[in-house]
Amino acid sequence: MIKVGIIGSTGYAGEELVRLLLQHKDAEIVWYGSRSYVDEKYASIFKNVCEIVPDVCKSDDLETLSKEADVIFTATPQGYLAGVLNDNILANAKVIDLSADYRIKDVSIYEEWYKIEHKTPQYIKDAVYGLCEINRDKITKDTRLVANPGCYTTTSILTLYPLVKEGLIDPNSIIVDAKSGTTGAGRGSKVANLYCEVNENIKAYGVLTHRHTPEIEEQLGYACDSDIKIIFTPHLVPMNRGILVTAYANLKNDVDYDTVKAAYDKYYKDEQFVRVLDKDVCPETRYVQGSNYVDVNFKLDKRTNRVVAMGALDNVVKGAAGQAVQNMNIMFGLPENEGLNQIPMCF
Amino acid sequence: MIKVGIIGSTGYAGEELVRLLLQHKDAEIVWYGSRSYVDEKYASIFKNVCEIVPDVCKSDDLETLSKEADVIFTATPQGYLAGVLNDNILANAKVIDLSADYRIKDVSIYEEWYKIEHKTPQYIKDAVYGLCEINRDKITKDTRLVANPGCYTTTSILTLYPLVKEGLIDPNSIIVDAKSGTTGAGRGSKVANLYCEVNENIKAYGVLTHRHTPEIEEQLGYACDSDIKIIFTPHLVPMNRGILVTAYANLKNDVDYDTVKAAYDKYYKDEQFVRVLDKDVCPETRYVQGSNYVDVNFKLDKRTNRVVAMGALDNVVKGAAGQAVQNMNIMFGLPENEGLNQIPMCF
Amino acid sequence: MIKVGIIGSTGYAGEELVRLLLQHKDAEIVWYGSRSYVDEKYASIFKNVCEIVPDVCKSDDLETLSKEADVIFTATPQGYLAGVLNDNILANAKVIDLSADYRIKDVSIYEEWYKIEHKTPQYIKDAVYGLCEINRDKITKDTRLVANPGCYTTTSILTLYPLVKEGLIDPNSIIVDAKSGTTGAGRGSKVANLYCEVNENIKAYGVLTHRHTPEIEEQLGYACDSDIKIIFTPHLVPMNRGILVTAYANLKNDVDYDTVKAAYDKYYKDEQFVRVLDKDVCPETRYVQGSNYVDVNFKLDKRTNRVVAMGALDNVVKGAAGQAVQNMNIMFGLPENEGLNQIPMCF
Amino acid sequence: MIKVGIIGSTGYAGEELVRLLLQHKDAEIVWYGSRSYVDEKYASIFKNVCEIVPDVCKSDDLETLSKEADVIFTATPQGYLAGVLNDNILANAKVIDLSADYRIKDVSIYEEWYKIEHKTPQYIKDAVYGLCEINRDKITKDTRLVANPGCYTTTSILTLYPLVKEGLIDPNSIIVDAKSGTTGAGRGSKVANLYCEVNENIKAYGVLTHRHTPEIEEQLGYACDSDIKIIFTPHLVPMNRGILVTAYANLKNDVDYDTVKAAYDKYYKDEQFVRVLDKDVCPETRYVQGSNYVDVNFKLDKRTNRVVAMGALDNVVKGAAGQAVQNMNIMFGLPENEGLNQIPMCF
Repeated sequence: MIKVGIIGSTGYAGEELVRLLLQHKDAEIVWYGSRSYVDEKYASIFKNVCEIVPDVCKSDDLETLSKEADVIFTATPQGYLAGVLNDNILANAKVIDLSADYRIKDVSIYEEWYKIEHKTPQYIKDAVYGLCEINRDKITKDTRLVANPGCYTTTSILTLYPLVKEGLIDPNSIIVDAKSGTTGAGRGSKVANLYCEVNENIKAYGVLTHRHTPEIEEQLGYACDSDIKIIFTPHLVPMNRGILVTAYANLKNDVDYDTVKAAYDKYYKDEQFVRVLDKDVCPETRYVQGSNYVDVNFKLDKRTNRVVAMGALDNVVKGAAGQAVQNMNIMFGLPENEGLNQIPMCF
Repeated sequence: MIKVGIIGSTGYAGEELVRLLLQHKDAEIVWYGSRSYVDEKYASIFKNVCEIVPDVCKSDDLETLSKEADVIFTATPQGYLAGVLNDNILANAKVIDLSADYRIKDVSIYEEWYKIEHKTPQYIKDAVYGLCEINRDKITKDTRLVANPGCYTTTSILTLYPLVKEGLIDPNSIIVDAKSGTTGAGRGSKVANLYCEVNENIKAYGVLTHRHTPEIEEQLGYACDSDIKIIFTPHLVPMNRGILVTAYANLKNDVDYDTVKAAYDKYYKDEQFVRVLDKDVCPETRYVQGSNYVDVNFKLDKRTNRVVAMGALDNVVKGAAGQAVQNMNIMFGLPENEGLNQIPMCF
Repeated sequence: MIKVGIIGSTGYAGEELVRLLLQHKDAEIVWYGSRSYVDEKYASIFKNVCEIVPDVCKSDDLETLSKEADVIFTATPQGYLAGVLNDNILANAKVIDLSADYRIKDVSIYEEWYKIEHKTPQYIKDAVYGLCEINRDKITKDTRLVANPGCYTTTSILTLYPLVKEGLIDPNSIIVDAKSGTTGAGRGSKVANLYCEVNENIKAYGVLTHRHTPEIEEQLGYACDSDIKIIFTPHLVPMNRGILVTAYANLKNDVDYDTVKAAYDKYYKDEQFVRVLDKDVCPETRYVQGSNYVDVNFKLDKRTNRVVAMGALDNVVKGAAGQAVQNMNIMFGLPENEGLNQIPMCF
Repeated sequence: MIKVGIIGSTGYAGEELVRLLLQHKDAEIVWYGSRSYVDEKYASIFKNVCEIVPDVCKSDDLETLSKEADVIFTATPQGYLAGVLNDNILANAKVIDLSADYRIKDVSIYEEWYKIEHKTPQYIKDAVYGLCEINRDKITKDTRLVANPGCYTTTSILTLYPLVKEGLIDPNSIIVDAKSGTTGAGRGSKVANLYCEVNENIKAYGVLTHRHTPEIEEQLGYACDSDIKIIFTPHLVPMNRGILVTAYANLKNDVDYDTVKAAYDKYYKDEQFVRVLDKDVCPETRYVQGSNYVDVNFKLDKRTNRVVAMGALDNVVKGAAGQAVQNMNIMFGLPENEGLNQIPMCF
């Protein structure tokens, strides 16, 4: 039984880690960490686990936790983990970080986009970027620190990867128009996230400045072995869960459906969690809701010689907690889908 | 032109006062009061009035405002107005208070239910309870202070008034099960009112302790000339606007549809804003959305000799800002519907 | 492995049976029945099971199906099963009926409320009313036909049962004010159920005439051993899933919290799926979403000597498919919670 | 008083025409046309106008109507008006068509994208494309037939017009990613538009094949005096009203904010209904809800030398009924904003 500690267990990603791990055969949560609710019963905050979780919330003391757990999930604000991580912690326990602190290899890019000084850049080099389908071979039993990818990033990369990797598009022409449910905005009490401010509305936000931009650029840059610049525009949608990416790019050559389909199948045919949909079927967020699946597809436009690539996932599962558990499974040599076989709840 | 000041103009009821008064022929807003946004452009907070309202927010200095305005609307937290009201203010300007401070005649009941000490009980006696359809004759050009009724209260009373007034039901058997949109919870930044906490959920709250209970009891008590005790249960519904009341009571005698219908028509036939629906048609909140209308109806149950009475209104219009404007119109001798003829927006 | 057939697999309850049974260790779906989608790929209708369910939809030929399955779930319109059920089918397979056809013992009451002639009343007598927590001992390996309770009925009965059974309330004073998500309205293409007709609205419907009324009355009547008459008012709420019941009744005596709590604990303490919440905590539908749990609680009003009892469940799980699977588990001697241990998805 | 007839008055755009025209000083609705509800009371279908509209629905007999009305609005399915329009009708009354029948000048393009044979192409030539802010000078007292622009088209064109007209972007690089509320899907009873199919979901649809594509291309082509090809991708959002367009294009030169702002101001500074927002403020659909306003803005990306242009409007007002009334006002020499001064309802 893997002993698990969660820092930030009372946020949306944290709660989702709890929901998934409670259904995981080989994991046991030993630490429900929280800054706001220390000593309160976890089930009094998230009453869905009433009569299921008897624990009370503990502090965010990472060092003590590291002695009690085999693995620690940090579902914390940007900069938190970078501020407290040290060798002791990493010697005691594996760390899977759901924040952005160790995702970007070039610390100056991190500091520029996040407007935060990085306190422990020395750990960036060894952190593995845990996008399981792409980086599976880099996640091993020896991995101490996983940088769990961002929600928009996971959707964007998995949607575009075969096109970039196979050289079918000009990567510098990529435009990612993304739409996210409101759990993506976090559980902090801000007027902008009140029900009546989000409901019956759609808006773009963080236009040209959203922090997932350099993360997408870095990872897709690896796929085509060059520095690339893209446009990424997130939108807030009045729904709880789900991200839909609609991505546009110029086709490099005059490719046909079968060629592009073959590229997608090459990378995803054997992947349980990435489903390439039938021709002309568009991904919808509801069909992956509550699950670790990502649905992707594409359409080719002969009129403009561009591709429209689309991807949908659940931002708190495959975009956060689910992928984190998937990383844990790989790191501990378990079946990759253990605890992650929930059928999507489509309504 | 009536000069209007609004304290609390950046809350939901405040914004709705602005929306309605901008469409009022004889009123002009001279003071956009706010505690949180002083010196900020009002249209930068509520961007719907971009290029329409050039004003910046002012303070909540009621005394200064009273010298510049003919009438002041206070859309403020409970206890605020009671804490600052004085003779000067009332001498300078009429006050229409959207809070509960002067609604309840017995100050001990106010203090018991609101858990607030009332600082200026001396003004309670002269405050007029501004439920226009019931108390129209008490609202006059000499009225200085109107206690604008609560949203749940307005719905509950208008739904039940003919039954109580005509002695058709046992008033002590009344049960009011009310459902409200989330603007009713206010614009404060609380986790409980975040989009993802309210969406896809329904819950009761304030069960047996909600502060509108004594207000309903007092007003319906006047209608039947006795002290009554009722049950009032509010629920939070994932929608922005609207209150639906479903009320139950024991019929005193074996009355038929025509008798009860005649009672409703007696009080509402000539009221523009109260619509008694056709037999068997149930009120729905969407059909009054954005308007000052209240839709009411009832059904008689021979099996149990009870009545089910139903009423729907828009909580921020007839339940707050609209009724406040209606009160202003009466106080200033204007047509009662001036600025209030918006057709409901049913989707 | 239990071979399962589903008639009506492309409605909301049908899909939910699929979702749950795919996660059930001892069941295998061999027949995806549908009237509208015969020969279409099931995963092309409910794309959440893309790459999971390869089957195409079959007809609603119950007799043929009965030869291929051990148990048949009928998630069909009222009157359908009563029109086709025969001895052969019941000899071949167990039947769990999610419609109302065999729920009400007095056929004349069924015909009066449903306005349908019952074609096979001879099977009513032996049908077991499958409210597991109450009727568990009547559901046995020999049971051939289970009448799976209605969604509103399950919520109402489980909310009120301890009060009625222990004689704490006057059962003829019961008023059930229920609020349901829109899956309860079914997947038929009606204007009234379009997104823009349901969204941003709440309404009562079927006031005093809803068909779940006599079902609640019959079952609660058994609990107090008398014929009772209640008021039941359903409302449509803009959300997908969930039913909240707020029920009111006159207390028979001057009971206190501990007495009533003891009554609830007596019946539910050992029930996995019924959770009696802590004092003053109100059930919310989101905390049972996607799960087989029912959350109940109550508050006592000394002012009026009444009780407010509340219950919440997921109408397509415990209110339909989940309870049906629970019945199957009991009938086949499996652990009652097999396939039903999903943690509620609270956002 | 202008006598107005509406064909299709029981759809969403039709109802909105009713809502707006009831608040119009110089117009009177004399004909509530409907195919599905002939002889039914209009207020029994749209109960928001209970006690306001006493009329019953009439047929869709355009010829008879043309003798009774000064102007006819047709809010009808594609192909309907083209199938029945004739010289008599146009001699009797002005026609403002909310369908696409006379929007596209090249009938072969219409037939290719709409898959409908055009029955009366002879009227296309004289039909005026009623995008008021762009084509105001073509809409005159002599205009007999106005092709009221599509909702997506209006948003897309007004968002991009200054950029295209002033030659600041490569028009063939335009990508329009649009998001629409569900009234845009119409009031027909389709499973795909049921509440539970739309709620908690976002999806693209009509990818590369949506019929508004050639309409945008034609109109923007006029602005730059060339044939252009764009990509247009609509998405369905779980909300009732509103369209948000996020458009991308390559900048032709290295322009700065002030240059582009000047272009927007050149065309919109004096337009009441088009609001160019302050720098960095993104349009949101809620801020134009229920009104005839369009909010637009843009951001320049130095990294990729592209522009992100954004626009928001209410699809049933400025995207349909509101613009139709605006066209009527111009055609009849009334103030262009008569009946269209509603303040947006931002929650």
